[in-house]
Amino acid sequence: MELDFSKGLVPAIAQDAATGEVLMVAYINEEAWRETLRTRRATYWSRSRGLWRKGEESGNHQDVSDILVDCDRDTVIFKVVQHGGAACHEGYRSCFFRHLEGEAWQTTQDRVFDPKDVYKKPQP
Amino acid sequence: MELDFSKGLVPAIAQDAATGEVLMVAYINEEAWRETLRTRRATYWSRSRGLWRKGEESGNHQDVSDILVDCDRDTVIFKVVQHGGAACHEGYRSCFFRHLEGEAWQTTQDRVFDPKDVYKKPQP
Repeated sequence: MELDFSKGLVPAIAQDAATGEVLMVAYINEEAWRETLRTRRATYWSRSRGLWRKGEESGNHQDVSDILVDCDRDTVIFKVVQHGGAACHEGYRSCFFRHLEGEAWQTTQDRVFDPKDVYKKPQP
Repeated sequence: MELDFSKGLVPAIAQDAATGEVLMVAYINEEAWRETLRTRRATYWSRSRGLWRKGEESGNHQDVSDILVDCDRDTVIFKVVQHGGAACHEGYRSCFFRHLEGEAWQTTQDRVFDPKDVYKKPQP
């Protein structure tokens, strides 16, 4: 179950286990990887936060039901059950709430929550 | 429709437009991004290949039907129609052909093609 961290952080795609919707992409280091395996909750690593237990403040944590790895072992997919209804710190279910229409990004989702109501401190 | 390339290459997730299956993750620079928009075929950039017109040699190209961007504008999803049946240079439909069972990676897919039959030169 080893991953290739030799090139640096490994991208982790959080994908809704039921619908296949891609909810977010974040990064893991070895510590975050081990912690995700141990707790079965998605744990990432960011340069600003360090070890990032997703949802610790917002309640929007992710239970990991399955883990896939790519051919190069340097990208993973966490199949998750998203709690709290939203993965994105901007309050949308998915961070990918915009798509390209013509030459402009258009929002395709409604907000699940208002970030001001959920986060006490500004997000990095 | 601008992306944030200030931190370097931007990850691009190729996701089957019909099923939601994640097929592969590669990277784009500004040139690959413009080329994808112009041709509506997934075009990536890699340190070893340079501009990488996916499927140019194997025939397994990807028509892009929709493009999503994340909250930070530094990750995109290409919704694609995968031609030739397989996205992975190892011959599987998806690069994510293994998942974690217990403490080992187990292959979950059958090969669509044998790489030896498709590629004339070794893949980087």
